[in-house]
Order: sequence, then C-alpha cells, then structure tokens
Amino acid sequence: MKDSGFANISVNAKRLWEDLNELSRIGRDGISPGISRVAFSASDMRGRKWLLERFKEAGLHSSIDSVGNVIGRLDTAKSAAKSAIILGSHTDTVPSGGMFDGALGVLGALECIRSLVEKGVVLEHPVYVVSFSNEEGGMTGSRALFRGIDQSEWETVRSLLNAGEVSAPPPPLFSRNCAGYLELHVEQGGVLDAAGEDIGVVEGIVCIHSFDVVFKGHANHAGTTPMHQRKDALLGAARFVVDVGDAVTSLGSGQSVATCGQISVTPGGRNVIPGTAKVSVETRDLDDMVACRIVQGLRKRAAFIAEEMGLQVFLTETSVIPAVLTHGTVRDAVEMSAEEMGLKCRRMASGAGHDCMIAAKVMPADMVFVPSKNGVSHSPDEWTDEKQCENGANVLLRALLRLDAAL
Amino acid sequence: MKDSGFANISVNAKRLWEDLNELSRIGRDGISPGISRVAFSASDMRGRKWLLERFKEAGLHSSIDSVGNVIGRLDTAKSAAKSAIILGSHTDTVPSGGMFDGALGVLGALECIRSLVEKGVVLEHPVYVVSFSNEEGGMTGSRALFRGIDQSEWETVRSLLNAGEVSAPPPPLFSRNCAGYLELHVEQGGVLDAAGEDIGVVEGIVCIHSFDVVFKGHANHAGTTPMHQRKDALLGAARFVVDVGDAVTSLGSGQSVATCGQISVTPGGRNVIPGTAKVSVETRDLDDMVACRIVQGLRKRAAFIAEEMGLQVFLTETSVIPAVLTHGTVRDAVEMSAEEMGLKCRRMASGAGHDCMIAAKVMPADMVFVPSKNGVSHSPDEWTDEKQCENGANVLLRALLRLDAAL
Repeated sequence: MKDSGFANISVNAKRLWEDLNELSRIGRDGISPGISRVAFSASDMRGRKWLLERFKEAGLHSSIDSVGNVIGRLDTAKSAAKSAIILGSHTDTVPSGGMFDGALGVLGALECIRSLVEKGVVLEHPVYVVSFSNEEGGMTGSRALFRGIDQSEWETVRSLLNAGEVSAPPPPLFSRNCAGYLELHVEQGGVLDAAGEDIGVVEGIVCIHSFDVVFKGHANHAGTTPMHQRKDALLGAARFVVDVGDAVTSLGSGQSVATCGQISVTPGGRNVIPGTAKVSVETRDLDDMVACRIVQGLRKRAAFIAEEMGLQVFLTETSVIPAVLTHGTVRDAVEMSAEEMGLKCRRMASGAGHDCMIAAKVMPADMVFVPSKNGVSHSPDEWTDEKQCENGANVLLRALLRLDAAL
Repeated sequence: MKDSGFANISVNAKRLWEDLNELSRIGRDGISPGISRVAFSASDMRGRKWLLERFKEAGLHSSIDSVGNVIGRLDTAKSAAKSAIILGSHTDTVPSGGMFDGALGVLGALECIRSLVEKGVVLEHPVYVVSFSNEEGGMTGSRALFRGIDQSEWETVRSLLNAGEVSAPPPPLFSRNCAGYLELHVEQGGVLDAAGEDIGVVEGIVCIHSFDVVFKGHANHAGTTPMHQRKDALLGAARFVVDVGDAVTSLGSGQSVATCGQISVTPGGRNVIPGTAKVSVETRDLDDMVACRIVQGLRKRAAFIAEEMGLQVFLTETSVIPAVLTHGTVRDAVEMSAEEMGLKCRRMASGAGHDCMIAAKVMPADMVFVPSKNGVSHSPDEWTDEKQCENGANVLLRALLRLDAAL
C-alpha cells in the first residue's frame, strides 16, 4: 500500500460544493436559523428523495430501504464475487443544525463514485454509498443494517415513516458481505482548526460514561441560618463541578474530557438554602479504563466533599457506551492517502458518536475528519471551507482505492 | 426602668399552649404535611375568625379590618389620653408551615392581656393586639396600618378577601397614635438553640441585597471540544458559588450571610457544555454598608473569574431592602425583663423580615425571640418547647409593663 496508483485522480470539487449547497436548501423554514432535517420529518424525507435522484443520475443501483436508509450500489465487471466496501454517513440533522455534519460524508462519497465512473476506473469490490437514517436520534439506519433492530423499534420506525415506504420488513443484515467501511465527516471539535491541520485520521470513537451526582443537605432559611450552621447542597455541587476539570487533568489521558451539562437545586427559592443539588456528569476517552479511572476519582472527590461539609452524596450511573477502535488497515489507508497528497494530518479520537462506531464492530472501518471552523457544530454557524471539503473527499477517494487493492 | 414592679406577674402557660394547639388544627388538610393558612385562603380566614372570638372572650374591643387584620383593643380608665402600645404578629403561614411562626406572637400577646385583666392590672396606655394580614406574602396588614398601601394593591386585596369583609375603605393610618411596638416570635434560626439560650433581644432586622449573576461562554459539544478550548459558563458559576462563602467570611461582620438559592444553565443538555449559567445571590447583614461591601467584593470576584476564563459576566441587582434598627428604650425593656427573670439572653439580628420592620420605621419597636429547635422554620418540623413559649410570653408581658411605665 505504498502508493494509491492513481496519483492524479481527484474529485470534482465544484460539483461537491454545489451539491452541499443544494442539499442545504432543504430544511430551511425561513423562521428558525440553520437547517432542520430532523430524522423522519418531511424535510428529512425530501432530502432523502433528492439524494436518491443524485444516486440514480450517477448510475448507482439505488433505493430507500424500509428504515429510511438511502443506498446506492456501484457494481463492476470484476466485483461480483467480492464483498462490498461501504462509504457512509447521514443526511438528517439536529434542529437548527449546519450544512456539513453528515451531508459532507454522503455527498463526498457520491462524488468519489462519480469521479471513478467518469474516469473509467473499475474497482475490484462492489461499493455502496449509504445515507443512514436517524444518525442524530440514535443511529437507527446503521444499527438496522449492521447489528439489527428489534421488533418494537421497528414498529416505531414504521410509524414515523410514510406508510408507502414501509411495506418491506426490516432490512436484512448487511454486514456479512462487507469488506470495509469509510466515513468522511467534519471534526465537530476545534483541534484541527486550532492547529492549522487538514485531515484527522480517526483512531477510534471515545467511550461515554454518564452519571448523576446528587448532594443532599438541609433546605433552610437564607436569613436566619448562620453560615457555619448550613448544609448547603449547592455549595457541595459547586465544589464538585470545579473538581471535575481538575480530575480530568490529573487522571485523564490528555485527550479526556468531562462535562457537567445540567444542574438543578431544590427547593429553588432565592431566599432558601438549597437542600438538594443534582449535577449531570459525562466523561469521554478513547480508553475505557481511563474513563473508569476518572469516574472513580470523581466518586472519591464527591465523597470527600460530602464528608467535609456534612452532606450526603449519591452517584447514579446513567449509561456507559464503550469506546470503539478503528481498524489498522483502514487507518493506514487514510493516513497514507493524506500524506501522499501533502496534507497535514494527525491521528485523533472522535469525541462524538458516528455511524462508523456501529460499522467498526463488524468490519474494518475508519473515518476521515476535516476541520470545523472554531470547532462549532450542531449550529447554523457550522463551517468547513470548500478547499477542506475537497481535501476530505480526495482522501476518501484515495483511501477507497487503497482498500480496494488491499482488502 | 430598674424593676418591672410586677415580680410575680406571669402568663397562664397552659392556656397559651392550648391556644397554640387549637389554632394549629386550622389549616391541616390531612394531605399536605404541616399547617397551611396561606394569606386570604379559606383556612386563613377561618383562623382569623377563631382569633376574633378569642379576642372578644378576653374583653377586647375587636374587629377584622378591611385588609384582614384582626385587631383587639384594651382600654382602661387611665388610658384615654395616651397613645397606644401595639403587640403584633401574624396568623397566616407559608404552605405546609409550622405552628409557632407568627401564631406564638399573636397568642402570646393575647395571653399577656388576659393575664393583666385577670389580675386587675390597669395600664397607662391603651394596648392593641394585632394579627397582621399576609405577613408571609408581603406584610400587607402592617404596611396598610403603618405606612399605607396604594390603590392598586388595595384593589388586589379586595379581590382576595370575601366581598362581605371589604365594604370598608383601606384602614386609616394607625401609627400617629402609637407609642411603641413589641413582637414575640420564634427565632427561625438555630443560634439560641445551639447556644442553649432562652431569649434573643433583637437589635434590628437585616438588610437584604439581592442580585443575579449570569456567566456567558460558548455552548459546545461535550465530546469534541478539548478541555482547554472550552468556555464553560457553569464552571465559572460554580467557582463563583464557592467564592460567595469566602467573601462573606473575609468581608462580612461575622453575622453576615449570603446564599445562592437558584441556579440554571442553558442549553441544559447533558452532552452540551453550558453556554450560560445564572445564579441568584442574596446577602444580609444588620449593617447596610457591610452588605454593600460584600456585594462589591462579589462583583470583583465574578469579574476576575470571567476574565480568567474568557467568559462574559453580568450582575443585575434585583432588590435592596435596607436594614431596620430597633429602638434602644424598647430593647432595654426586653433585655431587662429577660434578665430579671434569670433567663439567658443575647442581643442578635433578625435574619428574617417581620412586621416589626414596618412598625420600627414609625415608632419605637423591638422583638423578643425564643429558640427554634435545630433552627427549623417554614416547615412542619418547626418546634419550640412549651417552656420556651412561656418564657417568651412572660418577657413580652414584663416588657409591656416596663414600656407602659416608661413611654
């Protein structure tokens, strides 16, 4: 895998940029800012139908399956006996989202296929381009194809999709015939942007350990209770929030993060000392053991604060999503392609979940990241320059060619 | 004022305790805990009518005025030309409140009058016993009598009272004919209880300076945003909450308190770094300048945190209620009475607001505090022992006799 063998091959960047802009017009309501193609909404389905037409124009065997995945297949004379390579991402968005998250991966993949077809490149493997359904709301499409969904979830999806499009049973598992998976995506963080780098080679998708911490003290009168007689639950929680950052620094990997996104107190009167305070915590790292170490450290820290202040403390785990590592062969294909193009790249973890984490459990998989301006995503202000989109699509194209030769 | 001249005079403690228990049965709904006689509710009015009957039985000229105050007047042969001494408190409660807050002051005052009448003591001044209306919701009754309320508030009160009871115009100002004011009340804090003391002689009612602090950062993805790139508004707010206690210790009087009773963040997702965090703060002290110093210190502290973390911060004053000092003559009457009885007493500030703070602006006034078990009030768990209630009523009685002689 020293050379892609296609040193001069590249995507049509102008066409990719036009596609991104055209898709971005679907889901603007003129009232809310940004783009809203929330999964299974009318605008999401309009986006999928628009995409289906583009797949067909590109000569792909195309359909929308019974959970809403838009799937296009490129067959070649040589590929019939081989298992498939999947290029995927999603076209649904969060409410008031941006035009790159998900869309770049799908349209970049489409552009790769168009470029190969135009240049008469014949691949060894069949290639699928997929826009997975409901990535933002729970990765329904990729789970349905790669892991399978149960009957009750299937019923829910049926009720959300138009009746005409759900006559089929849930799609059969896809993964047995797959050789590998590649996903182009915006980073959504600010690491590449801050470092002035072009490409992130994804080493894995971090674990997420989530828990709630509840401090209990005594609600009491804000005027009549001397400071030294207080059991102020919010003060305990505030000390804990301050400690969360310290724990990440002292116990983490250097890449670890932890976030307190929610806080509430009771009774919640401005003249009442809070009797209880609840804080949500989640911590992420590519190494599950590091996340466990941080959670254990925070558990001790919470107990120490409670002991010192005469409070009670309760830690409740809400969920653990394990880390998923990407595959060495696919990672190397991405990294070599980026380096061959003279792009500045780094190996990095994905802090957000992606369809790739479902695929990576059943086949060799990796992701290509391009910079997000100021690290902003899930926002109308999400931005990636045209040149950066082009770089990402070209790395995806070359990595596909490498994998086609290697797998 | 060396001696009350009535060394053997005392209230009927058993009758006072029975009254407290009988009134406490009005406003128990059998569902919520504690006692609910929220101002202008049916149970509050039942309580007032019960009280009116007790006043009449005691031989007082009694009525319920047009804002709901229950007023009883004791005249004597000697008192016609003199201005009045007022003994007051309230019989409304917070929802699910206790049986002592307010009620002890009114029933203790009634018991003083009954004891005087029974023993044939003839006072120099007319004495009023008043249960002020809506103390808990804004001291409507005492403000109407001592300061006056405006037309729009009067309309509101009219709509809350039964039509039959609001035929009268707002009551005329009362204060021009008043010589002094005394109020017996439970402390509501735990100072006397913790020190094993019997009586608090109130030096004044603290000021309350209230403000909101809003930290603004950037809401961002909890997984993709490295720790060092965050502008976490909740972390700023948490550091501030921790600093509030330090500011009270370093800048306060030793009696100062400050409380953060409310906190909220946006967007408030557990996987989103908070972009804004809002904390309520109130600080109280008997010296307005001390409270100002604490507020200024906290303003600087908030600015320092914001500067250090790259956040914005906004401080909005929501209200300033100035401190009210009690009157030396009345304070001495209370203190001498307690000492004469061999009770352990201390001079102290009232951290809570009371009708006394309205009275104290227009006449010599003071309060008598008795212990609250564990400092609990506004709660079904509020408790003051029978003996402590008796002590309080006897100090009130002797202080009344002293004032009657002195004023």
